[in-house]
Amino acid sequence: MTRLTRRYPFSASHRLHSDQLSAGENAELFGKCNNPYGHGHNYVLEVSVEGPVDETTGMLLPRPRIDRFVRDSVLAKIDHTYLNTDVPEFAGNAVPTTENLSLAIDKWLRQGWQSEFGDLGCRLARVRVEETARNSFIVTED
Amino acid sequence: MTRLTRRYPFSASHRLHSDQLSAGENAELFGKCNNPYGHGHNYVLEVSVEGPVDETTGMLLPRPRIDRFVRDSVLAKIDHTYLNTDVPEFAGNAVPTTENLSLAIDKWLRQGWQSEFGDLGCRLARVRVEETARNSFIVTED
Amino acid sequence: MTRLTRRYPFSASHRLHSDQLSAGENAELFGKCNNPYGHGHNYVLEVSVEGPVDETTGMLLPRPRIDRFVRDSVLAKIDHTYLNTDVPEFAGNAVPTTENLSLAIDKWLRQGWQSEFGDLGCRLARVRVEETARNSFIVTED
Amino acid sequence: MTRLTRRYPFSASHRLHSDQLSAGENAELFGKCNNPYGHGHNYVLEVSVEGPVDETTGMLLPRPRIDRFVRDSVLAKIDHTYLNTDVPEFAGNAVPTTENLSLAIDKWLRQGWQSEFGDLGCRLARVRVEETARNSFIVTED
Amino acid sequence: MTRLTRRYPFSASHRLHSDQLSAGENAELFGKCNNPYGHGHNYVLEVSVEGPVDETTGMLLPRPRIDRFVRDSVLAKIDHTYLNTDVPEFAGNAVPTTENLSLAIDKWLRQGWQSEFGDLGCRLARVRVEETARNSFIVTED
Amino acid sequence: MTRLTRRYPFSASHRLHSDQLSAGENAELFGKCNNPYGHGHNYVLEVSVEGPVDETTGMLLPRPRIDRFVRDSVLAKIDHTYLNTDVPEFAGNAVPTTENLSLAIDKWLRQGWQSEFGDLGCRLARVRVEETARNSFIVTED
Repeated sequence: MTRLTRRYPFSASHRLHSDQLSAGENAELFGKCNNPYGHGHNYVLEVSVEGPVDETTGMLLPRPRIDRFVRDSVLAKIDHTYLNTDVPEFAGNAVPTTENLSLAIDKWLRQGWQSEFGDLGCRLARVRVEETARNSFIVTED
Repeated sequence: MTRLTRRYPFSASHRLHSDQLSAGENAELFGKCNNPYGHGHNYVLEVSVEGPVDETTGMLLPRPRIDRFVRDSVLAKIDHTYLNTDVPEFAGNAVPTTENLSLAIDKWLRQGWQSEFGDLGCRLARVRVEETARNSFIVTED
Repeated sequence: MTRLTRRYPFSASHRLHSDQLSAGENAELFGKCNNPYGHGHNYVLEVSVEGPVDETTGMLLPRPRIDRFVRDSVLAKIDHTYLNTDVPEFAGNAVPTTENLSLAIDKWLRQGWQSEFGDLGCRLARVRVEETARNSFIVTED
Repeated sequence: MTRLTRRYPFSASHRLHSDQLSAGENAELFGKCNNPYGHGHNYVLEVSVEGPVDETTGMLLPRPRIDRFVRDSVLAKIDHTYLNTDVPEFAGNAVPTTENLSLAIDKWLRQGWQSEFGDLGCRLARVRVEETARNSFIVTED
Repeated sequence: MTRLTRRYPFSASHRLHSDQLSAGENAELFGKCNNPYGHGHNYVLEVSVEGPVDETTGMLLPRPRIDRFVRDSVLAKIDHTYLNTDVPEFAGNAVPTTENLSLAIDKWLRQGWQSEFGDLGCRLARVRVEETARNSFIVTED
Repeated sequence: MTRLTRRYPFSASHRLHSDQLSAGENAELFGKCNNPYGHGHNYVLEVSVEGPVDETTGMLLPRPRIDRFVRDSVLAKIDHTYLNTDVPEFAGNAVPTTENLSLAIDKWLRQGWQSEFGDLGCRLARVRVEETARNSFIVTED
């Protein structure tokens, strides 16, 4: 088995705030990430695919196919947005931490995966999100 | 002369929108950076100082002095904020592009510089702001 | 399951030298890393945690809690030190290679882990140490 | 078990073209990577070794031994070459995609591994090839 | 004055060989860069622009305008090419070293610059080409 | 004029301590960099050369010539050393700050420069030392 990973940068902003907590609890738990108008990051999404190498093309899958799929099913929803208001998964619902963002991305990718890549025998092996280049990397793995 | 550069990462969000332009002009000029609720970046600020090396300490200036000054005069104003509303220079005024952000940072640093570092003979030589690690670097230079 | 990774840079120096080997064997085995007064590195420690995402906070664990724990149980022992003399695990004992350093860090983290993070259901999944940004990455994995 | 990873940069050029496809199919599948005279990359090869840490030396294996082995069995074949003509695995055979390049490197490393490192109890755990620093990482894993 | 820098990655291959030198001289001067079928790199081009910040837009110049200009006048000529045969400046002429590549790029950018950006008062301040991320950076400066 | 920059990583350790200051003053000024047995860094040295491009070779100067010169006149003195004891410029003399290290490197390079590169019309334009990849860059410029 071989694994291909592609990296997709995107920019978004968020405010960490839970409606189930008091103002004081939010401030203590999230610190300056709880500031009322939010702040932002240059995120990087890594998508890893595992499968057999096609003998004719020498590839797991053509790069434009995976790029288009990630753009349509993920980046179009979150790139250059304020996650708290622009993304239904977070508007009035889950806190837009990188943990929850990763789980949402993982869900979006798996929804259309089989109909898109089932013929190639490729499975989605890993989703990884960098919040900053230095600090936090969240991974969901099959 | 010797030059010392320190790097300071910070996170902020912004919306590129000019009140002097129509909605259509804004959309065409700024593209998805004009999305109504903003988006964000992991910025990096680089501050460069030029001056003589002190013979006793072997340094241009002690690192904690420059770090504290940058934190108080710049980072406290913009880190983990939404530039459009949280920073007076941009609230209802200039568009918070990285060009204007660099000019504001340059202004803030120069305001207190002389009283802080005049005794060391150090001058502020350069201010550089990275909006993303890949794309846009804005520099103001003495 | 979701995995969170945090990165912690630190600076230290070391000399690779084994008391069980002759001067010639040490020189041949370790090359210039055997120079008598040592040399140094900007290391990076990566700590990976695995566990469930808390529904209220949207996080595996609060960042300040893991940061404080790593600072107290690891960084306070090795940051800005000469490993050969300042760290009991290496003083007159094991050679301070990055392999042995990783094993020591892994041990220190596991000692207090359960009492610190047992309530959150988070386990220490991986310890990774970069000796230089280019060359050597040592990983111990659960 | 402990894992050591070493990084080896190399430069090479290639043209993505399959003799089993028509000119039009090649152009559509590979895009500008099908340009007739090729193009190139700064690749990075990562080799990961797993095994026990030697008590006397504190190392999985001496760095010069692994470096020499990778240089002789891999880099000498592909560094500063045009993969399509200079490397038998690709000349008139498989398309020199990074997938196929990774599989060839994996094969070359495994051929001599046992006779070289069998005495140390070290196994080849992973081969990873970066085509560009941003986009494509191919991994074969044991 | 403010300076904006944009980064543009591209991939190309080349062979360092001078028709004015003997085979032996070429081999000695260029080493493995003289291998007969070439090799390649992930280059990065940095273009720096200097000028006044527009009061309405807050920008030196709109990003899409500079990106389109660089794509049309530079990247379309060299991205995914074999410089020795695909680029007239090097085919049977100058050796495609990064020095000469930088001078060619500088020439191409200056040709159309005035008609493209003259109205904005922006000048081309610097052209910088990275051959590898680690080693060689060539700059031509106004 | 064209400028070529080469990067040279090296590892060293140092202790920041001035004999002209009391123990208390040293501790306050240098903080944990004053720890008694030192600590270390992966430094990077950048050497920039300016001059005309040779018409036959297409180069400012052959890479092996500059690499050999930097290795012999700089790296051989400081790579894998403890600066405080192994380097005469710092043993009982100047504090081995990155400022003073840069000035020493600048001095060493200029000593042999003219006899080595005078025939090529190349001048040493800039010396830059990174102490860590993130924080401190010291530059001396012609």
